[in-house]
Amino acid sequence: MNEKILENLNNPADVKALDEASLEKLCSEIRGVLVDTVASTGGHLASNLGTVELTVALHKSFNSPEDKIIWDVGHQAYTHKLLTGRYADFSTLRKEGGISGFVRPDESVHDSFYEGHAGVSISQAAGIAAANAVKGSKNFSVAVIGDGSFGNGMAYEALNHAGSTKTRLIVILNDNEMSISENVGAMARYLAAVRAKPEYYRFKAGTERTLNRIPVVGKSLSHHLFKLKTTLKNIIYSSSFFEDLGFKYIGPIDGHNIARLCEAMDSAKMVERPVVIHINTLKGRGYDFAETSPEKFHGISKFDINTGEPLSSGDCYSTRFGKALCEFAAKDKRICAITAAMALGTGLDGFAKAYPERFFDVGIAEEHAVTFASGLSSAGMLPVFAVYSTFLQRCADQLIHDGALQRQKMIIAVDRAGFVGEDGETHQGLFDVALLQSMPNTTVYSPATYAELNNALYNAFYKDENLVVIRYPRGSMPEFAEAEESNGGEFKTVGNGKTAIVTYGRLYFNALKAAEMLREKGVDVRIIKLEKIKPMPIGAVESALECENVFFFEEGMRSGGVAEKFGCALLESGFGGKYSVTAVDGEFVAHASVARLMEKYSMDAAGMAGKIEKEVAI
Amino acid sequence: MNEKILENLNNPADVKALDEASLEKLCSEIRGVLVDTVASTGGHLASNLGTVELTVALHKSFNSPEDKIIWDVGHQAYTHKLLTGRYADFSTLRKEGGISGFVRPDESVHDSFYEGHAGVSISQAAGIAAANAVKGSKNFSVAVIGDGSFGNGMAYEALNHAGSTKTRLIVILNDNEMSISENVGAMARYLAAVRAKPEYYRFKAGTERTLNRIPVVGKSLSHHLFKLKTTLKNIIYSSSFFEDLGFKYIGPIDGHNIARLCEAMDSAKMVERPVVIHINTLKGRGYDFAETSPEKFHGISKFDINTGEPLSSGDCYSTRFGKALCEFAAKDKRICAITAAMALGTGLDGFAKAYPERFFDVGIAEEHAVTFASGLSSAGMLPVFAVYSTFLQRCADQLIHDGALQRQKMIIAVDRAGFVGEDGETHQGLFDVALLQSMPNTTVYSPATYAELNNALYNAFYKDENLVVIRYPRGSMPEFAEAEESNGGEFKTVGNGKTAIVTYGRLYFNALKAAEMLREKGVDVRIIKLEKIKPMPIGAVESALECENVFFFEEGMRSGGVAEKFGCALLESGFGGKYSVTAVDGEFVAHASVARLMEKYSMDAAGMAGKIEKEVAI
Repeated sequence: MNEKILENLNNPADVKALDEASLEKLCSEIRGVLVDTVASTGGHLASNLGTVELTVALHKSFNSPEDKIIWDVGHQAYTHKLLTGRYADFSTLRKEGGISGFVRPDESVHDSFYEGHAGVSISQAAGIAAANAVKGSKNFSVAVIGDGSFGNGMAYEALNHAGSTKTRLIVILNDNEMSISENVGAMARYLAAVRAKPEYYRFKAGTERTLNRIPVVGKSLSHHLFKLKTTLKNIIYSSSFFEDLGFKYIGPIDGHNIARLCEAMDSAKMVERPVVIHINTLKGRGYDFAETSPEKFHGISKFDINTGEPLSSGDCYSTRFGKALCEFAAKDKRICAITAAMALGTGLDGFAKAYPERFFDVGIAEEHAVTFASGLSSAGMLPVFAVYSTFLQRCADQLIHDGALQRQKMIIAVDRAGFVGEDGETHQGLFDVALLQSMPNTTVYSPATYAELNNALYNAFYKDENLVVIRYPRGSMPEFAEAEESNGGEFKTVGNGKTAIVTYGRLYFNALKAAEMLREKGVDVRIIKLEKIKPMPIGAVESALECENVFFFEEGMRSGGVAEKFGCALLESGFGGKYSVTAVDGEFVAHASVARLMEKYSMDAAGMAGKIEKEVAI
Repeated sequence: MNEKILENLNNPADVKALDEASLEKLCSEIRGVLVDTVASTGGHLASNLGTVELTVALHKSFNSPEDKIIWDVGHQAYTHKLLTGRYADFSTLRKEGGISGFVRPDESVHDSFYEGHAGVSISQAAGIAAANAVKGSKNFSVAVIGDGSFGNGMAYEALNHAGSTKTRLIVILNDNEMSISENVGAMARYLAAVRAKPEYYRFKAGTERTLNRIPVVGKSLSHHLFKLKTTLKNIIYSSSFFEDLGFKYIGPIDGHNIARLCEAMDSAKMVERPVVIHINTLKGRGYDFAETSPEKFHGISKFDINTGEPLSSGDCYSTRFGKALCEFAAKDKRICAITAAMALGTGLDGFAKAYPERFFDVGIAEEHAVTFASGLSSAGMLPVFAVYSTFLQRCADQLIHDGALQRQKMIIAVDRAGFVGEDGETHQGLFDVALLQSMPNTTVYSPATYAELNNALYNAFYKDENLVVIRYPRGSMPEFAEAEESNGGEFKTVGNGKTAIVTYGRLYFNALKAAEMLREKGVDVRIIKLEKIKPMPIGAVESALECENVFFFEEGMRSGGVAEKFGCALLESGFGGKYSVTAVDGEFVAHASVARLMEKYSMDAAGMAGKIEKEVAI
């Protein structure tokens, strides 16, 4: 029989109808689909291979969508998509208009929230559980959260609050000993200690199996069962972290054993208060290359299935940042690097190897990262916190209160600034500029080239004071830009026409091409390219004042961004010409390739030229 | 002898020289100064009365400023100020140019950071400890943090990270069973359980005293001591929360016994890894009224020492918000209220009493609060999270990712928006507008009057969609504004001159007076007053387009604020007149009365009129 079980699954109820052998075949089919699809589309592989059995068990044990299954970060929900009517379209994964790589309510009633950031699922599930309690509903809300996200402060805030309630909240701690990079922090060590107990394995082999197989019929027996298990647990574990926080604890459970998972979930449903189910899974399970190098297969581009090698690679802003930082650090022993569980993604892996004593991976804890940097700085170090733009949103208050206000040297390297493409709404780096805009004592560079990136780092270390932010995009610089030199970190103009394109970052490259296209049509363009976007270089405004038409293109949110500030400055200086802003305005940007997004938002060369042509009489 | 010991203390070394009797007299003197001063200046009283002995012990045991003492939130550091050379100026507390009510490095080398927000001290201290480790310094860094702040996610992130290091970090958990309001959450319950053990008191009375008195001479004995104490502790406590997180645990210690505190600190200094010292203190200790009602004496205005009653009171935006919310909630059972440990300050105390099942105090956990609201909303409730503007900074990412992106109805009531006055830099509500500016699917109201506040709530519940923010200032509306009616939530104009004042919020009242002053000088002013500031009411821009001179006054940060957006919109619409922005530009605003700040930043009536007179030919 060649027909796939997956082809006949339309909703979770169909999963419930399958027997044990079919479930095993289903899991095998799913793994095949995951590897094949991600190899051709790119995406998150290791985390999804780790949650196949868990997802099947969840849909067997719970009734979605009445019960809510909430996926923390949402990058491990591919199996959930395949089981909830999205198998037929799954080959469109991460393509414009296709299936998202993350969880999205507009794709399915089985997706409760847009997900993409870490540590939020327990808060969301606790909110639903609280609402259910108010309404008298008996439905469950289930948060599925990795051990990496457990190091995040929000998760703790939620546990701390929910642990004091009597709601029908179930937290599944998916313990795969990894977040994106290897896990750090005391919580990781605590979980490792739990896993490492030899008693755990004896317990697993014997007592637990027996215990879990006790038929459970009603609340009082369930309570008895819990009491028994808790006592046993207390004997074999020296600690009780989750119970201190007010949760019933079940685990650890083999996360690749559907029967065992369902038993645990069914037990948890009978407790009239919040429960943590602690399960062990293997990231990359079932695909050798991913099991061996799960970090490489966390978020990956298209790759060769037979070798596990990505189809493209090479220099990018992240790697160049990492190299430059190592060079500075070789000469200056004050320089430290901090990452929030993203050493590889931010290009800090080389620094971590070369200067382990000055490298700090604080876990998925962006708030702590900034304030920890503030501490390092106050003691005379030069800390650099490298973080994706979208996760910088997590530490707005720390940047204000523990960064800018302290008037201490701190450097934030903001990676993935601007469109990130296929990861979609939750990952676009479109808010950082607007969020930073109001902060006093803050310098923001938006280098377009590697040379400008190096120069910004130099300025940050040795010329500027206080908080310095350097933001740069995902991916690589175009080759022709190798010849471009930094202008020392302020701004530069190209051409001296009366029609100006003002922009910053990589849109500069599109502006160069647009200017060429317009020149052929007889429009003489002046490009005003900002290297520093805060404080605004006054000379850039003065240059624009000489023009009749000024077009600002901004790869970020319009509202609160640089273009509005620039326009206001022009008006206050008595500018009487035309002004036009092109930016992302009042919407979230869904997944599509970066090139396609540039086109969609009129930020590619043709879009820029077209906008200008329409306005400027030729 | 009437001379005060305090008068002869110039620095912490002088404290070290005092004998036990003098220390007791010193503590008594300090309490007298605290009550007298706060009664006449207003400030934080209960928390400071609770940390008198702790502060004395800290300066006896540690060597500030080589060792760093870091005060979480910084509102409990009055004694620290008195012991570090600021006694003579202490009567200027919270006055312009005087001693700040919080910790400030520009006041003293003994203040390491500007402090004002909760949960940051462990991160700061961990950063210093890490830098000391890199540099080979043997200095200590000590974070003093209340049990309320321990429910904050940042504190957990820092514990989680620092617990896996071997640094000279000491965390003093000042457990006073209160944050600002009564403590909530599982952590609070856990600490209460530790305190409640009868064995604790027997232990305290006997064994601990003996143990702590063992002379400690060198590392190995210290380790032995710890082992002994840990074993004892494990016997009497069923839990080990802090040790799970990787910290050595000492406590609980009587926080009003200087000798006991010093012993604990001296022991902690001999452990070559992070330590938590858990101490018990009484908020308000030594002043009956404050002991009985510590929440009332948390942050208090001037009060009568003999009665404990504040010298002024009455209606304010917070209480009116609370009343209005109760009225809506009486008719609509979906309405829920959420606070992050600020039920009284945000006016939600009435709601908490009337609708306990729909009231959620989540602890000092603004991130969780927003995302918890998102969960409530997804399950059909109408959640309102009331939070101070300065603490809204903590949840920028949650507002974007778990609020605006989800397209669910959520209401954020932002109290203390604008100048807050005496609390200074860390508490001014000047950033919320700029931070909200870039968020899609978001409506922001800035009501000037109670009527507008009510109307904004109505719109938020029943007219608007998605995320709705309502921001209003600290304090009371002027009486004459009772007659002002809401304009339905958009904008209104007063007068039709060609010179416009554009503004929003309470600056409207100053604008009215300024217009009067200018009318007397022959300048005919049009006031364009925004009730909704996002999305920008188009009619307001159109009205300004009819004018020759437009002056925007904004009680908030200029950069990224509404005035720049308005100016850019005018320019794009072809406005050819003069435009001028008055706002707070690129600086933090220190403590002074609100009236004085209005004057300083040219936002009072005279300042407005003066600016306009200068520009407009009369």
